[in-house]
Amino acid sequence: MGYVELKYKPKQDDVVCLFYVEPAGISLKKAAEHVAAESSIGTWTDVKTLSESIKKRLKARVFSIDVRKKIIKIAYPIELFELGNVPQLLSSIAGNIFGMKAVKNLRLLDVRLPQEYIKHFSGPQFGVHGIRRLLNISKRPLLGTIIKPKLGLNEKHHAKTAYHAWIGGCDIVKDDENLTNMRFNKFADRVIETLSMRDKAQDETGEIKVYMPNVTAETIQMLERVEFVKQQGGKYVMVDIITVGFSALQTLRKATGNYKLVLHAHRAMHAAMTRNKKHGVSMLTIAKLCRLIGVDQLHIGTIIGKMEGSNEVLAIHNELQEAIIKQVVVKEKNYTYSLLEQKWLLKPVFSVCSGGLCPLHVPKLMQLFGNNIIIQMGGGIHGHPKGTIAGAKAARQAIDAVMQGTKIKQYARTHKELGLALKKWQTKVRLK
Amino acid sequence: MGYVELKYKPKQDDVVCLFYVEPAGISLKKAAEHVAAESSIGTWTDVKTLSESIKKRLKARVFSIDVRKKIIKIAYPIELFELGNVPQLLSSIAGNIFGMKAVKNLRLLDVRLPQEYIKHFSGPQFGVHGIRRLLNISKRPLLGTIIKPKLGLNEKHHAKTAYHAWIGGCDIVKDDENLTNMRFNKFADRVIETLSMRDKAQDETGEIKVYMPNVTAETIQMLERVEFVKQQGGKYVMVDIITVGFSALQTLRKATGNYKLVLHAHRAMHAAMTRNKKHGVSMLTIAKLCRLIGVDQLHIGTIIGKMEGSNEVLAIHNELQEAIIKQVVVKEKNYTYSLLEQKWLLKPVFSVCSGGLCPLHVPKLMQLFGNNIIIQMGGGIHGHPKGTIAGAKAARQAIDAVMQGTKIKQYARTHKELGLALKKWQTKVRLK
Repeated sequence: MGYVELKYKPKQDDVVCLFYVEPAGISLKKAAEHVAAESSIGTWTDVKTLSESIKKRLKARVFSIDVRKKIIKIAYPIELFELGNVPQLLSSIAGNIFGMKAVKNLRLLDVRLPQEYIKHFSGPQFGVHGIRRLLNISKRPLLGTIIKPKLGLNEKHHAKTAYHAWIGGCDIVKDDENLTNMRFNKFADRVIETLSMRDKAQDETGEIKVYMPNVTAETIQMLERVEFVKQQGGKYVMVDIITVGFSALQTLRKATGNYKLVLHAHRAMHAAMTRNKKHGVSMLTIAKLCRLIGVDQLHIGTIIGKMEGSNEVLAIHNELQEAIIKQVVVKEKNYTYSLLEQKWLLKPVFSVCSGGLCPLHVPKLMQLFGNNIIIQMGGGIHGHPKGTIAGAKAARQAIDAVMQGTKIKQYARTHKELGLALKKWQTKVRLK
Repeated sequence: MGYVELKYKPKQDDVVCLFYVEPAGISLKKAAEHVAAESSIGTWTDVKTLSESIKKRLKARVFSIDVRKKIIKIAYPIELFELGNVPQLLSSIAGNIFGMKAVKNLRLLDVRLPQEYIKHFSGPQFGVHGIRRLLNISKRPLLGTIIKPKLGLNEKHHAKTAYHAWIGGCDIVKDDENLTNMRFNKFADRVIETLSMRDKAQDETGEIKVYMPNVTAETIQMLERVEFVKQQGGKYVMVDIITVGFSALQTLRKATGNYKLVLHAHRAMHAAMTRNKKHGVSMLTIAKLCRLIGVDQLHIGTIIGKMEGSNEVLAIHNELQEAIIKQVVVKEKNYTYSLLEQKWLLKPVFSVCSGGLCPLHVPKLMQLFGNNIIIQMGGGIHGHPKGTIAGAKAARQAIDAVMQGTKIKQYARTHKELGLALKKWQTKVRLK
């Protein structure tokens, strides 16, 4: 087939992909040929319409094969991609190939995007530093909560719960992933009620507070909801990036740019394609596309909460925030691999740690990820024995303790909300 | 937690989901609790804001657990879903749950949508019968081709190749999944050139011919492309449903409705989440959402071509085209399950068999799927030893042979193009 060229050196403008490949009854080299062909210009048989000159100019090239690790690298000429069109990129490098009989398992681990590709995207509008300025918080992690239960509260009860979270010490209140425009909790009324409570909480605390309504919907309806949030004085929106999809995410990014709104990305459904470490698309790849398109905040996992997460989560955090990515080694259960080098000229994205967190996790999270994270707790705040206000206080106290270099157990002696939280959850959560 | 109620009988308006669940170090019942909670109103800990009355009204209920098969059924009250919002449905029943530590593997096998949910969607605009009327083909399978190579031809060469396919006998010509607006092949020019060749082919053959340009892009750009196709006299568009995502697909369905265009759905990337039979989302579930939203044609696989596919493909074909789905049994390698019953009031979708097909596959395909399919060949037409015209002739001859009840080997004696195709591929393709 001619798609393997081990002496090829990728050009500066090539898109480079890192794949884990388990061949199905053929050699790894042969399977690599199929992956390179199907994701660029080839198919299962020779065709009369494919000339040698087209092939030379446009074919993808497998330039590295690690037989032991089953890891290959493929370089794609940039002409294969429509600039500014993420769905088209995915239809190529993450499209038909996952279904081919030639492979038993196939995983897109990483993609190196050249500057020529990146420059057609705007990246985050606010990013880490813009959000810190907006919230007037210079150093500590931000504290967010998700209103719980996910679904069930009416608009007023939702707004009141948000108010409790804010006055307890949360910076951010967000809707949950499945809360949109419900029979019992209408989008418009919820936004009005909750933003009104935000104003009250700001007045009372002297802190900046933000609310992230979930605009997940069909694209045009989503844009109408974004406009409504802006009209009502909102500063943020959130969206479920995987279930709306990448076309809508690109559209939304333009809208939040026009309206100067911060964009928060929830990743519900990602694990349907990211969790199996031998197949599908890595969360790291999705995270890179999110930085490219320009979400300001992205859920990355926690390692230590209710959601599965390996040390890839640290690599994702790094990929979202650093300007230059070196060849970081990622260890999965069954294999290790080095990430591709990547240069970013786009702003850093705020990493959001969320999923089964409570105040007990705070020291470990800050040790793992540093301070440029948003620590989000749902059950870990609203599940506090004394309710939401106390829960938010406890979470904020945990952050304050770590910022002061004090152990949370010691801090809890003089901060009763934190003490009650530790008591409730200390035997129930895993810190590893 | 209280989400298991084995005596519960699902209400007519409940959404019902069928899951395969591998628990991680806990009982299947406990894992089922976690799935039901996280996909409805619960989280990992009790929360003070969740009242008993909310829980009773809105919680999901596990009403069936098959410990041996690891299959569970969950009923969701319809109030949990925003009507008309597919991303929100997925964020609930196919969202966070795939990432939970409580499960090792989790697969959404099927979803039963109640009429109350379905009626907020329009379904296919044309469907099988509308497309047959449009093309004036009453009984035989339709014949389509994808221009190959996927990428590389310029606009004029693309149009000329399409012309060859049409005069050879193809009804439909489509762009490939990664061909959008390229440096070497601009969308607008390609549409103009190719539709002009379509007119010529129609005049010369006296048959109706259609072209499906790929409009995959950011939503607003996609809509502009759809409008352009309509202005130029096109009757069809195609889109990569997974890489654009469900918000954009819903938006596109509205546009094709307004412009009276047929909508073809390519599923590139689906296998990243559908292929592992123990995890992710089944292609059957995606196909149901496609009928709901209303694509007119959908790639379903071939069982016998270059792409992986079990007998789930037959169930998908059935699900796309029948009015009432009974409890069909699907056999996977490691387990079997019965599909949920489903009533459809929406038009049937044309199933598209595509991926590594050549004329040799035609008898088996028609035996497996019947006549209400679109047989699509890329390499199997453009790879013909005598080129595209002869390739299209051979493919059409294979269909004609089966329609006449003649064996293709026998038909090939008097139809040289078919004879050459059989000769080239008879030792190279698998028919099982």
